[in-house]
Amino acid sequence: MIERRIITGFSNPTVKHIRSLRDKKHRRREGRFLAEGLRILTEALEAGHVPETLILSDRAEPHPLIDALEAAVDARGGEVIETSVDILEKLSGKSNPQTVLGVFADLPTALDALDRNASPIWLVAQEIRDPGNLGTMLRTGDAVGAGGLILLDDCTDPFSVESVRASMGALFTQHIARANGADFLAWLRAGPGQLVGTSLQTETDYQTPGYAPPVFILTGNEARGLPDDYEAACDLLVRMPMMGKADSLNAAVATAVMAYEVLNQLRRS
Amino acid sequence: MIERRIITGFSNPTVKHIRSLRDKKHRRREGRFLAEGLRILTEALEAGHVPETLILSDRAEPHPLIDALEAAVDARGGEVIETSVDILEKLSGKSNPQTVLGVFADLPTALDALDRNASPIWLVAQEIRDPGNLGTMLRTGDAVGAGGLILLDDCTDPFSVESVRASMGALFTQHIARANGADFLAWLRAGPGQLVGTSLQTETDYQTPGYAPPVFILTGNEARGLPDDYEAACDLLVRMPMMGKADSLNAAVATAVMAYEVLNQLRRS
Repeated sequence: MIERRIITGFSNPTVKHIRSLRDKKHRRREGRFLAEGLRILTEALEAGHVPETLILSDRAEPHPLIDALEAAVDARGGEVIETSVDILEKLSGKSNPQTVLGVFADLPTALDALDRNASPIWLVAQEIRDPGNLGTMLRTGDAVGAGGLILLDDCTDPFSVESVRASMGALFTQHIARANGADFLAWLRAGPGQLVGTSLQTETDYQTPGYAPPVFILTGNEARGLPDDYEAACDLLVRMPMMGKADSLNAAVATAVMAYEVLNQLRRS
Repeated sequence: MIERRIITGFSNPTVKHIRSLRDKKHRRREGRFLAEGLRILTEALEAGHVPETLILSDRAEPHPLIDALEAAVDARGGEVIETSVDILEKLSGKSNPQTVLGVFADLPTALDALDRNASPIWLVAQEIRDPGNLGTMLRTGDAVGAGGLILLDDCTDPFSVESVRASMGALFTQHIARANGADFLAWLRAGPGQLVGTSLQTETDYQTPGYAPPVFILTGNEARGLPDDYEAACDLLVRMPMMGKADSLNAAVATAVMAYEVLNQLRRS
């Protein structure tokens, strides 16, 4: 039986510390982030990521996946905290007594750590601001077998609670890199890679070109799309057919439609 | 010049009434909903939907699209309200003085009002709970030329502020119907229509079948997917390839990937 530390008070410093990680400023300062839910923590564990601290409620029913998490945390010298449902709700926003919460050390985000030849598809997001969109892009990246998600310029924090939740654990299976546009382009052009942007300023249908891996699918900001200089840097600009009144798709949807087209081409070849 | 009613007080009953429409219970009782933003209100106008009440700030710069909205509201006997940025922020959640807000009468949602032959693609959502997903599905429906979105069982309210915003105005260009599963299936089977569900319980790749319009693309709840009896009622169950650790896509993403496959087949034929 793994020893659990019991915390009963809202004013406990550990409770305050964990709660502070819901805030970006504190995440950055501490180099730590939160992930919630048995499914997501189990995905993390399977990908080799063990929380430093695991928090569960004193009313959590026994569960083999919880046992596995506790054992892994203990083996790495981490801490298992048992607390009330009320305190867990304050930390996680969920009143479910089965909720589990993990504190993780930041994942590496250096561009140079990526092996571009490890995967035929990479996703690239430029100033994506909605954490749900960013997490959804990670989830889609996992589904299409992408290597990871490269965040350019001022994207929302991929380690926010909302992004981690929307990723459904793909945060732990996809590589994440952060860079500015100039550094990314310098890195990209130092090796193979086809940069494909979706744009309204082209007549090229997204099903027309032949994509050559590794394909880097570039998606711009939700409101503004891609800046002109990013479009100019692309090897290919393509557009999805738009049959209605609207001239654009949700950013995460556009990324997914594009990524499945590339995957479908690769499956056929 | 259209006459504007000036409202300066937070406690004004009209302000309270409009604000109450952010709440589902009040929307249902009043049969009215809110839409925000010049772009979305202009989409509504172009689709023939004029707000009963238009609210703008006393610091809004003149704009031809605002003029067009005011003229349309006035011509229909509606009211234009000018108020402070602070009150507008209370109503819309936005502190932008250019924000405009419209109060609309509920759109019709009867299944019998749909003309299934008006479009080759229809989207069907079963117990979709996230308003962002639902609005995104409407936006995707517009993009692929779908006729509308049919909401089965206990879906989130399509007229919530979040859903309307995520739809980017497609709420006004797509037909919306609400039904329970039995009524929907009875309606569906009374005419032509291929019901296609995405499922983990099939080996049929989503690019294998030939889709026959009108195609009804059925997407299940975010956490649970489609119930077994809905899967059994489908003419086709298909799956998208999943190359990673995850076994599912975001519901709005899955709908879009599926809808673009159907559209692409229709474009080729």
